[in-house]
Amino acid sequence: MTLLQYTQRIESYLESYSFPPSPSNLYEPLGYFLGLGGKRLRPVLTLMAVELAGKEHDEAIHAAMAIELFHNFSLIHDDIMDKAPIRRGLPTVHEKWNSNIAILSGDVLLVKAYELISKQKNEHIPELFQLFNRTAIEVCEGQQMDMDFEERGDVSIDEYIEMIRLKTSVLLGCALEFGFIIANQSEQNRKHLYDFGVNLGIAFQIQDDILDLYGDPEKVGKQVGGDVKSNKKTLLYLVAKKLCKDLNSNELNRLNEISDLDKKVRETQVFYQEIGVLNETKNFLEIYYEKAMKSLELVQANSSKENLLEMTNFLFNRQS
Amino acid sequence: MTLLQYTQRIESYLESYSFPPSPSNLYEPLGYFLGLGGKRLRPVLTLMAVELAGKEHDEAIHAAMAIELFHNFSLIHDDIMDKAPIRRGLPTVHEKWNSNIAILSGDVLLVKAYELISKQKNEHIPELFQLFNRTAIEVCEGQQMDMDFEERGDVSIDEYIEMIRLKTSVLLGCALEFGFIIANQSEQNRKHLYDFGVNLGIAFQIQDDILDLYGDPEKVGKQVGGDVKSNKKTLLYLVAKKLCKDLNSNELNRLNEISDLDKKVRETQVFYQEIGVLNETKNFLEIYYEKAMKSLELVQANSSKENLLEMTNFLFNRQS
Repeated sequence: MTLLQYTQRIESYLESYSFPPSPSNLYEPLGYFLGLGGKRLRPVLTLMAVELAGKEHDEAIHAAMAIELFHNFSLIHDDIMDKAPIRRGLPTVHEKWNSNIAILSGDVLLVKAYELISKQKNEHIPELFQLFNRTAIEVCEGQQMDMDFEERGDVSIDEYIEMIRLKTSVLLGCALEFGFIIANQSEQNRKHLYDFGVNLGIAFQIQDDILDLYGDPEKVGKQVGGDVKSNKKTLLYLVAKKLCKDLNSNELNRLNEISDLDKKVRETQVFYQEIGVLNETKNFLEIYYEKAMKSLELVQANSSKENLLEMTNFLFNRQS
Repeated sequence: MTLLQYTQRIESYLESYSFPPSPSNLYEPLGYFLGLGGKRLRPVLTLMAVELAGKEHDEAIHAAMAIELFHNFSLIHDDIMDKAPIRRGLPTVHEKWNSNIAILSGDVLLVKAYELISKQKNEHIPELFQLFNRTAIEVCEGQQMDMDFEERGDVSIDEYIEMIRLKTSVLLGCALEFGFIIANQSEQNRKHLYDFGVNLGIAFQIQDDILDLYGDPEKVGKQVGGDVKSNKKTLLYLVAKKLCKDLNSNELNRLNEISDLDKKVRETQVFYQEIGVLNETKNFLEIYYEKAMKSLELVQANSSKENLLEMTNFLFNRQS
């Protein structure tokens, strides 16, 4: 199957998946939010993993969808916490309804994710369940670390990478390992595929930080420098802080105080390039990308790894 | 074992159960909230059910604790939605920390409940998991109905009872059935015990409505008439509305407009007694109490039902 066909399989499941009609204030926001779209990257990874092990992808369709529901649950609650008014160009749940409805419909969506896992074969449930629990706990921990970092001035690069590992990357590992659990793969083989997903996720998140400041706004689909404008502690910023300390430079403080935000973005772009921030951050990206590729090499597969590589190229916009 | 001993078993498990130290903003609120106490009624029911089937109660200890964690998750989130500042005499999580922390630590507590279920024997996990998912969804639906009712003027008595069944009673049924799943009881026997729990829960909730207006404040542990003061749509109010319609009386509107709240409570007490509201509400309580007792009679047990009856008497302060 092609990437597009995998995505269509997920979309067609989503179309057939419906929430109860009532209480409408609980379930309508969920139909709305899931309908906002997205790349459906995570459930596609689950299906690809099953096929990589030589099984029928549909054996994992409920588990794949559970990952997508979990992802959407975490977005609905994160949007409340971040006071985000817009998601994919449309109002967030707490904006369109209210915070109470966003809390409660998020809660029920998390339970619905578990309900989908319970639809897989009984023999796989205990292992799916354990991995999912561990992952869900880690995602919450990552989100809390992210919120804590906003209040802290001493966040290290290691802590930041641990935060993105927990908040966003372990779910990619979980999505892939779900497919391998259902395809009865060995623990070691599962671990290699999981590690591929986690490292891919970290690399992807680092790329996200870079594109926010250096991306083509047409391609990225959002304004350039949003993170700089809101003084977000991205990896670029943390690397810049480290390099400035080494150089005994106060330039970051000066940049911080520029009130003309477009000027601030332009000068930050230039400064980060000059002192090597961009390069060092790209090095981090490369390290995790390479780790991902090495883990993928170790995976024993019963069919071609082409689909996963295509997905990777799609995410990183590279030519293999 | 006596009721006290069951409760102590739960408390000692809770003392040995600890959350990770970090992120502290995620886990500290949970230690705090679980430490606020409570009757631990639900996990005690699980242990009692296992023993009723002639098995060792400790076989169900993780499942019992999962129910207690779920109950506390729902309280933490409900407190945010209800803007409740105090729980068991101390500040709620969103008051002591903030709403974001209360949302996220509630989320992780729900996952921790699932994690405890996963510690039961693999053979029982699929059934525990399914019942828990269904129950958790119902509790969310009940909470949404409760919030919806605040905005509605046309809530019927049937709808109200359905709301309390979902919001608070199904969890008692689930707690009991958990014990019977673990003790490998038949589906029919499980159903009888579940029905006992649900009907007991409905009766208990109706008693709660009555005690709010007619209870001895010393025994109830809160001010009398809180529901009347805040114009809450309790079963007493819905019965009063129905009787006033039959009597063509506008008295409820007059009572509603009394600004001296203590006077409002006193006059409501008298009026509800005069037109038979108190009696009809007590009839409802009796109906669900009797249903519970009939279901309990149908339960096939391998040991005495005395403990469950003692618990029932404790809840309803009756002499058997």
